[in-house]
Amino acid sequence: MPAIHQADEVYRNALILATLAKKMRVPSYATEHVPEKIGSFIPELAALCKGTMRKTQFSACPEGLVDLLTSKAPAGNARSLPKHLQKNNQDSERPSIVIAGVEAHVCLLQTALDLLNDEMEVWVVTDACGSRTERNRDAAFDRLAGNGAELVTTEMVVFEWLEGAENEHFKFALDLIK
Amino acid sequence: MPAIHQADEVYRNALILATLAKKMRVPSYATEHVPEKIGSFIPELAALCKGTMRKTQFSACPEGLVDLLTSKAPAGNARSLPKHLQKNNQDSERPSIVIAGVEAHVCLLQTALDLLNDEMEVWVVTDACGSRTERNRDAAFDRLAGNGAELVTTEMVVFEWLEGAENEHFKFALDLIK
Amino acid sequence: MPAIHQADEVYRNALILATLAKKMRVPSYATEHVPEKIGSFIPELAALCKGTMRKTQFSACPEGLVDLLTSKAPAGNARSLPKHLQKNNQDSERPSIVIAGVEAHVCLLQTALDLLNDEMEVWVVTDACGSRTERNRDAAFDRLAGNGAELVTTEMVVFEWLEGAENEHFKFALDLIK
Amino acid sequence: MPAIHQADEVYRNALILATLAKKMRVPSYATEHVPEKIGSFIPELAALCKGTMRKTQFSACPEGLVDLLTSKAPAGNARSLPKHLQKNNQDSERPSIVIAGVEAHVCLLQTALDLLNDEMEVWVVTDACGSRTERNRDAAFDRLAGNGAELVTTEMVVFEWLEGAENEHFKFALDLIK
Repeated sequence: MPAIHQADEVYRNALILATLAKKMRVPSYATEHVPEKIGSFIPELAALCKGTMRKTQFSACPEGLVDLLTSKAPAGNARSLPKHLQKNNQDSERPSIVIAGVEAHVCLLQTALDLLNDEMEVWVVTDACGSRTERNRDAAFDRLAGNGAELVTTEMVVFEWLEGAENEHFKFALDLIK
Repeated sequence: MPAIHQADEVYRNALILATLAKKMRVPSYATEHVPEKIGSFIPELAALCKGTMRKTQFSACPEGLVDLLTSKAPAGNARSLPKHLQKNNQDSERPSIVIAGVEAHVCLLQTALDLLNDEMEVWVVTDACGSRTERNRDAAFDRLAGNGAELVTTEMVVFEWLEGAENEHFKFALDLIK
Repeated sequence: MPAIHQADEVYRNALILATLAKKMRVPSYATEHVPEKIGSFIPELAALCKGTMRKTQFSACPEGLVDLLTSKAPAGNARSLPKHLQKNNQDSERPSIVIAGVEAHVCLLQTALDLLNDEMEVWVVTDACGSRTERNRDAAFDRLAGNGAELVTTEMVVFEWLEGAENEHFKFALDLIK
Repeated sequence: MPAIHQADEVYRNALILATLAKKMRVPSYATEHVPEKIGSFIPELAALCKGTMRKTQFSACPEGLVDLLTSKAPAGNARSLPKHLQKNNQDSERPSIVIAGVEAHVCLLQTALDLLNDEMEVWVVTDACGSRTERNRDAAFDRLAGNGAELVTTEMVVFEWLEGAENEHFKFALDLIK
């Protein structure tokens, strides 16, 4: 992470997303790339996720990400998921995923392009993504937008998950992003 | 407003739009979000509008904005609206709206996306919109453009409402933007 | 012109285009907006054009630009126009126009949008266009691109008109842009 | 090359691409424009390519680039090309090309637009392209994207050619980009 451009902000935003996802029971997964060589996924983040998937390809799709995402969630979670998020993730024809990570122009890019190719709706959280160089990072965002990804920010995700000031998690979320 | 990036310019442009809208009898509405908690809509701006709508959802649509916009205007106003604006707003198949406000990436974004989803033609006046951070603001503009909104500036709206130098409000408008 | 952002560069590029257009016999027209009030079109540029059109609307289309552009050119000119430019401008189903000027977000924008609406292929030469503020200028370019205009630069036009190093006007054009 | 904006980085990235292409047996070609007047193609780069094509038009297509690209490769090379790259380049309906060079807004742009017109999938490696001015270069990229080119960076190409950490050329490629 230290080599990543604006690493602190990227990490902070990923933490906000994972924390709120856990609180609102939005299923989340971590992927780690050849951890025995380049190190494990950040433990604080992994602990907030439902699971961590190991991979050797740069894209997480050839080694099973889509199966993981589209498998039926345990009944307990599905029931407790807020209604408007249930609709988006389970009833619609096009499943959606919120994605963030490093490096934006390698693993994240290749994964997102594969997901778009599988007809998923892909939200890329730009301020929770990073590359070593700003130019590679921004080129990844432009390319993802051109291929149909929805580029969003951490706060957009937070306020779209909440929907309004009366959401029971509103105060919790507001404290997170302060 | 003070926390908003370039707040002075945002406010100044919103004031120009509301003032000219009133002068040219283009119907305009203010929305205020949970005013008892985060304060009322700016009184100077509200006074220029036909009405102010309160809301608790971030998007203004679930609580009735579309009904407000597509309801028949009183006969007096409809007759006095300049012809080319009448056509745009009432006769065409796709009703249009000019939208501005704060925060660009939360309430304004969610409202605009809902309006686009309702098949309205949405003009977002970028220099009359703001967020606390420039990055969130610009990400909102990019996302809106990608979803079909027309990104415009205050001066574009002014000169497209006027159409030409012979418009009776030309001098009034020119003084406004100086 | 002095109030325009980067006025010198805008003027220099417009001059290059008009000079080469005249040399290569590409028909060109100037438009001037209410000249008795805001001054005549720059005489050096006007002298290079086939004609100058006066207008009072911000868009040049309601007062006859399209008729001017699509009227048959005099036989003498049509014959001497380079073959590949003849094809583009006269035989194809979609007539094309190269456009530049000030202010980018008012007269030029409204004219270009009207031309696009008329199914013309519109090339906007960005470095030969200007507005008083950079933000309005760039917003005009983004909006034009979103509406289907082809954004080009002066050098792009020059080298696409020439096609190759063996063009008889190659040396003349190279001296122009130096 | 010295006159090109960020010439060192452009050259370094072109060298990485040509070196890896040779190692992974991806066929590559150089084009040189009127070499007797403006000098030969850089010898170090040319030596890494399968061949060098001379041209006098700014676009390389009228003088035979597409024939060169779509001609059957010698059997030896075709067999040794990595499987996933074989698929992309030979079996799919739409042949693909990775393109880089100078000047981005003249020869490269015109060539790429012609290739897109021929229904090829065109990848433009932005950080291995240059123009004398940054504005012309960036305008070329925007125009190429608007016309359907895929804008990529050198590292994107490297990691998409490799596909994963287990590729036999992974270590070689990593040393190249360090």
